[in-house]
Amino acid sequence: MAATITISTDFGLTDGYVAAMKGAILTVNPSAQIVDITHHISPQNTKEAAFILGTVYRYFPTGTIHLIIVDPGVGSRRKAIILRTPIADFIAPDNGILSYVIGDFARNAGRKIPETLQAVAITNMKYWRAPVSRTFHGRDIFAPVAAHLSLGVPLAEFGAPITSINTFPLPVPRLSPKGVLIGEIVHIDSFGNLITDITEQDLPHGTPNFEICGNTIRGLSQAYRESKALLAIIGSSGYLEIALNEGNAAAFLRAQIGSEIRVTVISNNK
Amino acid sequence: MAATITISTDFGLTDGYVAAMKGAILTVNPSAQIVDITHHISPQNTKEAAFILGTVYRYFPTGTIHLIIVDPGVGSRRKAIILRTPIADFIAPDNGILSYVIGDFARNAGRKIPETLQAVAITNMKYWRAPVSRTFHGRDIFAPVAAHLSLGVPLAEFGAPITSINTFPLPVPRLSPKGVLIGEIVHIDSFGNLITDITEQDLPHGTPNFEICGNTIRGLSQAYRESKALLAIIGSSGYLEIALNEGNAAAFLRAQIGSEIRVTVISNNK
Amino acid sequence: MAATITISTDFGLTDGYVAAMKGAILTVNPSAQIVDITHHISPQNTKEAAFILGTVYRYFPTGTIHLIIVDPGVGSRRKAIILRTPIADFIAPDNGILSYVIGDFARNAGRKIPETLQAVAITNMKYWRAPVSRTFHGRDIFAPVAAHLSLGVPLAEFGAPITSINTFPLPVPRLSPKGVLIGEIVHIDSFGNLITDITEQDLPHGTPNFEICGNTIRGLSQAYRESKALLAIIGSSGYLEIALNEGNAAAFLRAQIGSEIRVTVISNNK
Repeated sequence: MAATITISTDFGLTDGYVAAMKGAILTVNPSAQIVDITHHISPQNTKEAAFILGTVYRYFPTGTIHLIIVDPGVGSRRKAIILRTPIADFIAPDNGILSYVIGDFARNAGRKIPETLQAVAITNMKYWRAPVSRTFHGRDIFAPVAAHLSLGVPLAEFGAPITSINTFPLPVPRLSPKGVLIGEIVHIDSFGNLITDITEQDLPHGTPNFEICGNTIRGLSQAYRESKALLAIIGSSGYLEIALNEGNAAAFLRAQIGSEIRVTVISNNK
Repeated sequence: MAATITISTDFGLTDGYVAAMKGAILTVNPSAQIVDITHHISPQNTKEAAFILGTVYRYFPTGTIHLIIVDPGVGSRRKAIILRTPIADFIAPDNGILSYVIGDFARNAGRKIPETLQAVAITNMKYWRAPVSRTFHGRDIFAPVAAHLSLGVPLAEFGAPITSINTFPLPVPRLSPKGVLIGEIVHIDSFGNLITDITEQDLPHGTPNFEICGNTIRGLSQAYRESKALLAIIGSSGYLEIALNEGNAAAFLRAQIGSEIRVTVISNNK
Repeated sequence: MAATITISTDFGLTDGYVAAMKGAILTVNPSAQIVDITHHISPQNTKEAAFILGTVYRYFPTGTIHLIIVDPGVGSRRKAIILRTPIADFIAPDNGILSYVIGDFARNAGRKIPETLQAVAITNMKYWRAPVSRTFHGRDIFAPVAAHLSLGVPLAEFGAPITSINTFPLPVPRLSPKGVLIGEIVHIDSFGNLITDITEQDLPHGTPNFEICGNTIRGLSQAYRESKALLAIIGSSGYLEIALNEGNAAAFLRAQIGSEIRVTVISNNK
């Protein structure tokens, strides 16, 4: 079956690790349509992987299987899990990497898996590659499980149901006592655009004023090209972004993951 | 249908942007054969994208659809276009990125689309993803349009015909009054090879002598291995290249895009 | 036919060279399943390419065709070859790049091709792209040959059988007169893990003690997470690895390809 399987890792593309996973998938399902999401997650950075996955998965065909292998606990007792949602399946170590996905289906779900979803702990070795190496479950467990799942093997075949998984608290902007909306930078993309945790719905009514790293931006732009200076814009994933047209906002502002952004409303008499 | 769709961008592979485009394509046409050309175009460098596309597209199957998303004007009034040629379709913002393609079908065509080709401005929202973000038409307009085109939707369905597009003048070598052929470096590849705008046909009869960045090279080589020093060779796209066998010519010569190369003929009595 | 063809090169992904090879493959076999192994081999580093290929090829479906184009001798008289094994076909320049593959089928085979394998020198231009460039046989010879092979063209069609190929001696650990096992670092992966030429079978009985770059490691770990310091573990390709959990062992130790590792046994009274 021509099911789509995506792969996200922190393996880089210099070695053959990603290719070995693809080989393991194709050995089980030669017709799988394999798509790379990214292999350049910073080593062991599960939060970065969680964010990128969260911005991408909904653009794939319904039923896509997403493999996410950022796995500092490989070989330890951390669980390997499959999470089934109405739009996609996710196969990953149980280390918080699915926090944004869980958050999309139930705000403040915490560790509890929302009732509309299903999950299992992967324990049935029948669907693994043998022998299983100590350091590369991506190739020996996750990849073949994804391939068997893509062939229609029922979820329950892979292991027993679970009702909770590890998640981390998603960053959300807060309102100060004085009415200032305070968010933070959660991702910096390769253009240097600063992606915040503030959505369009979070923004106050009126013309917003943004303060970040000692700079001020007045109003929202509708296109990068509208300004040659810093600009604020609602980015492609629905989050407020700070960008520098034809430049690198992160470098210009010396901004980092976690840098604060403050939003107020410009009063009419200004 | 197993049509081939290529993607070229300046997105890098660190984020999920390229993957989101692939997801958007596969959502419309799950059987599309997607091939990356490169995602490492320098940010907003439409000329670099145009050159690389120009050296590659003719090696794909007839009917391949090439998506090229280097789009500094996203969200502004720049057009989105489809260009149909007898060998491939091209989908891109109208920012000069198809200059080499146009040049291949009509030398000095300028902005006018040669009569053997067809083009439309993409305006029919029926084939777009909704909602369309302000910053990522690659995912929301170009990718789904490519996928629908790959399914056989007629060109005229996507928008009205256009007869001209934006192009930039292609670099061409010139002959000085004293008969010196003067070209320039138009691309530096990842080996440090310097690719010029001079073709084999442009070279004078006789044994050529090349001057570049204060160095002299006598004669054309037939293989990189022929010399341990600098060498001149006709490269794989038909352009004269300056290379350093097992070394990096660009670093050795401190050459840059635009650096001049001068060609004369070695006289017989030398 | 949906045969799998892998590609390994030193081309990088900045230019369109890899894409041109894929286009050349798809022009001949539009249904080929193409998988990248890596394109980040250090320029002209045939040993690195040989090692990575050796760790990956056995994870692909039986009958996969592996194209390996690290080819400093392109355009010279070096042969182009196809090596057929019971589990995969390999297409490459004859420059030692298949040394690990040959070694897997016959220890100390040297240049002689083991009798269980077959090989031909690629000479039949019928299966090449025309014209053939001087500098890019990957696109003009190797890629179309791989595609024709994937369509079932018999091996003998591509050229005459050969009985020997170029190989380099594979690194193997040696035992000193005093009983110390002395190996070396043969690869450093992108996590900074140091992969040695020592296999689990090579290790002495008892608890091993490892000395590398002035540091000592006692015993083998079963998972990266077991230690916050340096650790020794059997890696995913069966070789002893030195790693630093959540760190970069290569940077920490200033280790290099060729660095020595010494293994002794910890005596019981310690």
